[in-house]
Amino acid sequence: MPNSAEDKKKVLTRIRRIGGQVEALERALNSDVPCVAMLQQIAAIRGAANGLLAEMIEIHLKDALLTGEPTLDQRTQCTDEISGLIRSYLK
Amino acid sequence: MPNSAEDKKKVLTRIRRIGGQVEALERALNSDVPCVAMLQQIAAIRGAANGLLAEMIEIHLKDALLTGEPTLDQRTQCTDEISGLIRSYLK
Amino acid sequence: MPNSAEDKKKVLTRIRRIGGQVEALERALNSDVPCVAMLQQIAAIRGAANGLLAEMIEIHLKDALLTGEPTLDQRTQCTDEISGLIRSYLK
Amino acid sequence: MPNSAEDKKKVLTRIRRIGGQVEALERALNSDVPCVAMLQQIAAIRGAANGLLAEMIEIHLKDALLTGEPTLDQRTQCTDEISGLIRSYLK
Repeated sequence: MPNSAEDKKKVLTRIRRIGGQVEALERALNSDVPCVAMLQQIAAIRGAANGLLAEMIEIHLKDALLTGEPTLDQRTQCTDEISGLIRSYLK
Repeated sequence: MPNSAEDKKKVLTRIRRIGGQVEALERALNSDVPCVAMLQQIAAIRGAANGLLAEMIEIHLKDALLTGEPTLDQRTQCTDEISGLIRSYLK
Repeated sequence: MPNSAEDKKKVLTRIRRIGGQVEALERALNSDVPCVAMLQQIAAIRGAANGLLAEMIEIHLKDALLTGEPTLDQRTQCTDEISGLIRSYLK
Repeated sequence: MPNSAEDKKKVLTRIRRIGGQVEALERALNSDVPCVAMLQQIAAIRGAANGLLAEMIEIHLKDALLTGEPTLDQRTQCTDEISGLIRSYLK
């Protein structure tokens, strides 16, 4: 979880927005919206998830590496976590 | 909207799953879960959005091109829609 | 291979550009360019590959679906090919 | 550029492989290979560029954060570089 209340609020806002987009998508499915309009809604949810992922990576790097004097072990753990996530993301 | 009830049900199931993942992510944010665990949840939401997008493209191609005898205009419209969508998110 | 000479030329131009980017990347590796500059070059190659993929999908849809009167089998084959590619791309 | 000769060699191998894939793609274009086969070659180049990007990020994090005792400025620069890169291509 983000260290700062401000970062936590930013993340919560993004999560809530994605939640709203998903609810809107379900309404679209039930109201005979053309397929291509639904495709654009889904692409927007995907984009929002990408934005949230980028934001959380930035927060994690900041919290783990720029707060106090992280030990070599702490830096190594953070580096492994981010590298692992990016590797799995960049298949 | 998908032509067949079966496809519509498949899409609804995926949408509901993503909705559940987003709710779980908000709970994680409020319960001090480590950042890296949240990062993995977000990556999973992104993967689910990808799967839904691929499924909807497949359904749209099938509904527009394999039902009856689509006219050249209908085929052109479908081709433009899919190409436009792919161009916008294949970044 | 694209049906029209014009499309073929467009694709060849993109392929050659990516080839040039890859050669430039090798030169950068051998000339002590900062890591972050190389990262941006690689991200540009990835972007160019995405652009080429989007262009080829568009050409394939056009050649297979908008030339003459494609049979149901031909339409089905094209639909399966594109859906399969997008599914593997959108993991 | 990677600090260690071993990392540099790993990166060079990946760059050469992508170069070979791009050359093979040009040959395919000139030898009437079916579109769908070219699409798969392009998807493979994109996958290889993804792999190279993930590897370089890992190397950059390691070189910048796990070698000696990086200052706050050095850690901040590395964090900004990686976050900026991820934001630009996590679309």
